[in-house]
Order: sequence, then C-alpha cells, then structure tokens
Amino acid sequence: MARAALLHLLRYRTASAAAAAEPLSAFRCLMTRSNSKTPAAGIKWAGFCRPFSSKAALNDVIGNDTDSSVAVMEPQEQVDPFSLVANELSLIATRLRSMVAAEVPNLASAAEYFFKIGAEGKRFRPTVLLLMATALDVHIPELSPPGFGDTLTIDLRTRQQRIAEITEMIHVASLLHDDVLDDADTRRGVGSLNAVMGNKLAVLAGDFLLSRACLTLASLKNTEVVTLIATVVENLVTGETMQLTTASNKRFSMEYYMQKTYNKTASLMSNSCKSVALLAGHTAEIAMLAFEYGKNLGLAFQLIDDVLDFTGTSASLGKGSLSDIRHGIITAPILFAMEEYPQLRAVVDKGFDNPANVDIALEYLGKSRGIERTKELAMKHANLAAAAIDSLRQSDDEDVIKSRQALIDLTQRVITRNK
Amino acid sequence: MARAALLHLLRYRTASAAAAAEPLSAFRCLMTRSNSKTPAAGIKWAGFCRPFSSKAALNDVIGNDTDSSVAVMEPQEQVDPFSLVANELSLIATRLRSMVAAEVPNLASAAEYFFKIGAEGKRFRPTVLLLMATALDVHIPELSPPGFGDTLTIDLRTRQQRIAEITEMIHVASLLHDDVLDDADTRRGVGSLNAVMGNKLAVLAGDFLLSRACLTLASLKNTEVVTLIATVVENLVTGETMQLTTASNKRFSMEYYMQKTYNKTASLMSNSCKSVALLAGHTAEIAMLAFEYGKNLGLAFQLIDDVLDFTGTSASLGKGSLSDIRHGIITAPILFAMEEYPQLRAVVDKGFDNPANVDIALEYLGKSRGIERTKELAMKHANLAAAAIDSLRQSDDEDVIKSRQALIDLTQRVITRNK
Repeated sequence: MARAALLHLLRYRTASAAAAAEPLSAFRCLMTRSNSKTPAAGIKWAGFCRPFSSKAALNDVIGNDTDSSVAVMEPQEQVDPFSLVANELSLIATRLRSMVAAEVPNLASAAEYFFKIGAEGKRFRPTVLLLMATALDVHIPELSPPGFGDTLTIDLRTRQQRIAEITEMIHVASLLHDDVLDDADTRRGVGSLNAVMGNKLAVLAGDFLLSRACLTLASLKNTEVVTLIATVVENLVTGETMQLTTASNKRFSMEYYMQKTYNKTASLMSNSCKSVALLAGHTAEIAMLAFEYGKNLGLAFQLIDDVLDFTGTSASLGKGSLSDIRHGIITAPILFAMEEYPQLRAVVDKGFDNPANVDIALEYLGKSRGIERTKELAMKHANLAAAAIDSLRQSDDEDVIKSRQALIDLTQRVITRNK
Repeated sequence: MARAALLHLLRYRTASAAAAAEPLSAFRCLMTRSNSKTPAAGIKWAGFCRPFSSKAALNDVIGNDTDSSVAVMEPQEQVDPFSLVANELSLIATRLRSMVAAEVPNLASAAEYFFKIGAEGKRFRPTVLLLMATALDVHIPELSPPGFGDTLTIDLRTRQQRIAEITEMIHVASLLHDDVLDDADTRRGVGSLNAVMGNKLAVLAGDFLLSRACLTLASLKNTEVVTLIATVVENLVTGETMQLTTASNKRFSMEYYMQKTYNKTASLMSNSCKSVALLAGHTAEIAMLAFEYGKNLGLAFQLIDDVLDFTGTSASLGKGSLSDIRHGIITAPILFAMEEYPQLRAVVDKGFDNPANVDIALEYLGKSRGIERTKELAMKHANLAAAAIDSLRQSDDEDVIKSRQALIDLTQRVITRNK
C-alpha cells in the first residue's frame, strides 16, 4: 500500500472514528487518535464515589487479610496512569512495529497502519497491563535496585510486556475483521476502514496479526496463558456474532446484552490481566482479582460507550453518532427504557431505516431513566474493578502503591469521560 | 442459518468446487465432494517410477542406517490409505462436529457446514497425519497388544488425532477467509461460497475455527507444536497475500511461485506432519523427515492442481476451468512456457479480461513443454516425499510397514490423479 493511501486511511480513521458503527468505537477512538493533550485534559473528574462497592464480596473470596494499601491515599494524589508507564509503552510500540514487518509489503502496510507513530493513540490496554504488572509487584527493570535477581525480574517483566503486545495485536485484528462488510453494507454506503482498504486485505492483515500474536504467545511457553488468550479470540468472535442476531428475545434481553458486551469488550482485558498475574506466578486468587479488574473495567467502559453513542460530548440526547441504533444494535439505555415503556419494543421492532423512528425511540429514551440507569450500572462495574485492586494484599512499595492508585484512577476516568 | 440455506450451500459447493478461483480448488474438491466411490476408483496408477529420487541426499542427513522397510514390498501390494484409518477418521469427524458446536447458532452452522456428514469428503490431511502417526510407530489403540503402556499409547495417539483435527480446522478457516471478496469481485460475479454465506459470517466462522484450533493446540501443552502451527497460519496468510501481488518481477518468478505454493499449500501439511512426530518424542532428524514428506506431498499436489486447471480431466489444454489464468494468477505451466517463449510475457502483461488473450496464452502453452515440465517437477517432489518415508529406520511391525506403504502410495495418487 502506498504511503499516500496510508495517509488517507489515517485521516479517514481519525475523522470517522467517533462515528464508527461498532460499540467499540470509543475504545478505538481512544486507541487511535493522536494524543496532543495531556491525558487528564478535557476529562471531568467525579472523584471516588463508589456507591456499589463490593469489596466485602471480594473479601469473601480471598480471605480477611486484604487491607487496601491505596485506601490510605488521598483522592487528590492523582497519578497519571499513562505517564507511569510511558517509557515502556514506547518500547512496546517499537516492538509492535517491528513485529508486523512482514516479508509481503502490502500485508505489512495494512497491519503497520495501526501501529504507526502518531496513529497509536493512548494504548489503553497496554497501559492497564503494565500498571497491573507493577501493581502485582513486578517492577519495571530500570527502577529495580541492582543486585541478585535482576535478570529474573527483567525476564518476567519482558514476558508481561509480551502480553501487552499480544493484546494489542488481537485488538487490532478484531477491528480489522469486525469491519468486514457484506456487499449489501457496502452498497448502503456504511462507513468503514475496509471500504477503503478492501475486505480481502483487511481479513488477511487481521489473520496475520493473529498468527503473530499466536507465535508470540507460544514463545512465552505457558499453556495456561495460551488457553486464556485463545478463549479471548473465541469470545470476540462470539460477541460479534451475537450482535448480528435478529431474534427479538435475544436483542431485547439485558442478560444477552451483557454477555455480548463481555465477549466483545471485557474478555480481552480480563484474560490479559489474568495472564499478567499468572506469568508472575501469583495464586489463583490474585489472578482472579486481576481478571475481575479487567472484566469490570471493560464492562464499565462499554456501558459508557453505549451512553455516549446517544449523547456524544454534549450530554444531550441525540447528540451522539447514534450509530448503534441506526444499525439496529440495541444497547443498555434502550433496554432500560423498554422496561419502563414496553411500547418502545414495537418501535424497535419496526427497525430504524426510517429516521423518524429513531426520533420516536429517542423520545421514549428521553422520558425514561435509560441513560441514568446505564451510567449507574457502569459505575457499579467501575467500583467492582476498583474493589478488586483494593482487595490486593497491602504493600509498602511506593511503585506498587502508585500503580494500584493509577488502576483505580482509570476506573473513574472510564466512567466520567465524555468522549 | 436455516437448514435450507445450508443445503443450498452444500449443493453450491459440490457443483462449483472444481471451478473455484483458488489454486487450492482441487484440494478442496478432494475434501468436500461426496465420496460415493472407493478411493481408488477413477485413479490411473503410474506405478513407482521415481526418476528424481533423492534418497541419497536424505541419507546424508540422517546417517547410513536408513534401509527402507518398504523397499522390499512389491508394487502390487496396494494399500488403500483411507481404509487403513477409516475408524479413526470417523472418530475425528465426530469430534470436529462437536467442537464447532458454538453457543451462537448461526456461527456454528457456518462452521459446521464443512464438517457435516456427507460433505466432509476424503479428509486427505487427517488421513496423511494418522498414517504418519502409525508410520512413526504409534499404534492405533485398539490394535495395540494389551498390557503395560497402553494408556500411554492411547494418550499419545489421541494427541496426534488432535493435530489432525487442528489441521482440518485451520484448513477450513483458510478456505472461508480466502473466499472473502471485495465489493469489486462481487460485482464481477466471481463465484464464491461467501457470495452466498456473506463475507462477514465467513470471516467470523473462520476466526471461530482458528480460536478453537488454538484452544485445542493449547491443550496439547507443547509449545514447540504451538509455534509450528502458528507459523502455518502466518504462512497461509503470506501465501494468499503473495498471490495478490501485481508486480511482474514477482508474478513471473518461478522462485516466488514456489514460495507462494509452499505457504499456501505445503506449510500446513509439512508442519502438521512434523508436529505428529514431535508429540511422539521423535528426534529432530525423524521430525525433519516427516516435515519433508508433508512439504513435498503438498508441493506435488499443488503443481498437479495447476496443471489440471488447464487440462481438466481430459488432459487436453483448455479443458480445465482455467480459473487461475482468468484471474491473472500465473502458475508453473505458464512460467515454464515463458522460459521457452519470452514473448508470452507481453501477452500475460495485457491481462486476461479479454478471452481472446487467454486463447493466445494457451496457444503458446500448447507448443511449449510447460505442462510436461510442471508434471516432471510434481513427480520430483512426489519422489522426494516417498524418499523421506524410505529413509525412516527399518521396522518389522506390519502396521508400520503398511502405513509407510500407504504414505508412499499417496505420493503417486497425488501426481496421477486426473481430477
């Protein structure tokens, strides 16, 4: 692919990311937009309100000795999650670029596009995973005190970095494959990166990334981790397929929606967090906390994403891209609204090819508590994520404490972001 | 997907397999057609001519103690390769069907389609792998003498069966993904299963199979095998992408063509054969022979496939489906013809949208030794495959001898088939 074409793709992606059809669009937006501001800029903080905190429930699992090391920190001690791991992120970005350098130029170009400098965005997933590594007491090598055991630490941290790289490759592969269009979609002019890149090349580039991810995974020589990550790929596929369903009893089921959301968004984060813990040799209980953090962070993220699809940055209904509802994808706000107004079901059943029908649905949504209840559910999951971190055994190590705080900060960023 | 739609797909596939656009079409034909005759029916035997046998070269690698156990067998002692492993093949087919049973009905239907009873064809790859297992002295459990060690044998053989299942899943995934079409192709009315199934579902079903293959692979807990199979997926992608190239210096290069052919066809067979050997704990030398067998069998198969694209069953030029050349895919017969008639290059450069140009190319091919030299090259690789089996250390075990003979028979079937 020529440089000009790549630049075109880059501009295209930047301009249309927010309007993408998939529920992952904000995740993508976060991942792909050029980061010209500091991470905190433009984000309104909600503080540490956790009305649904279920730390008690998590304590049941891991016993009583679970005093939080971060509970003593003041809320104002904000830690920028991204800057804590900035050097490592840039190392990973370099490695990702070199890993997708294939012998076949146009394949490499398609895959590399997502890893280009400037196009790589925030690297949300790698950030979480590297913070998790430190939070579980595996230090960034250059910060370790010199002496016996350094090599082991470096090796372990490097292996955990590989999980971040694998996760990023799988994420990008899923973006490429999710965007594959049927002929009918193309004719209807639905916007997609692949409309420019071509379905075929997108599929091949995705497969290429999956195979590189699998090779990297094999190099870790940990079959439990291989199983976790293979499960992620299966979940991603299952989630995408669940979204294609046209059966009303499924489309209108909150349980089905949450399962789909776990598969499409939360599985990758939960299983990769768990992998980071397992590589460090942690117990099943600790690995479970890492998993719970990733799962609940992912669910909270997606719930807010589904709200933003209706409200956009303005917090007013109808100001979002409305891409979900226009594509007939029914998300939490509408599901909650339906509980209050069962007659909304008939509106949804008619489909949304007619924009007037979208307006009717928005009207119902506006007078319901749909948006509010979705935000509450997102907060509940954000709090569960934070509680998982709180439940880790206390540490006096400053880096560990900082990273745990940063992970908790992320749970709040996710639910208070407005874009 | 409704049953009616699946049946439609099934009929479609059976009717159009031979006319498929990809060089793998005959492989597919072998895999997907309903098997109403005995395997030997309709196959003309060429006997055991091996003008290019390179057994000597292989001996250099594994030492001198490599007397062939099959050399003493008479050519007329034909062993039907498929019947030797029939029971195990049906076991594998059952397992494949159960493994693709997903929670999501339409995903399962798409994946299952290839594993339906009656649609499963010859199971060429699993047959080779099971024969290889026995040829390397791992017996089918029910044929083992009772006593100590049985459980180990069963376990090992089961693990080798998993390789056959994984290989089949990856093969089908690659069929699904290779057939993904760009909008332009669809408009031109190129025949493809995915034109019926839909690109999106084909991609997801392929990804689903890849993730199941990866899960099965992880369960084997052998990271060397994980690496080999991940390499296969990467090679399949690279091969397909190489075929998309439009650069003349590559399209007209015999070396590039052979590399593409290895990636697209021979890598899966060679690496899975090697995996079967590694699981049995064989030495690197034996694993290399298994690899060489799979590689050369795959190359021979594809070379003959490329001949049949021109000749079809009749052995006359222009009687094949001509799908490669019509899609601008330049294969060995044309490459050899070009060496004799450099002016053919200009013809190819014009493209084959105009059928008259296809006729001109066929004319050059007809007066060249292109078809003949391709068959000779296929025979050379078939003989290298047979030589790899001949190079295995002698065995007195009847099952081992029979399976080795069957593997050698397959090398001849591959080059003498006329469909």
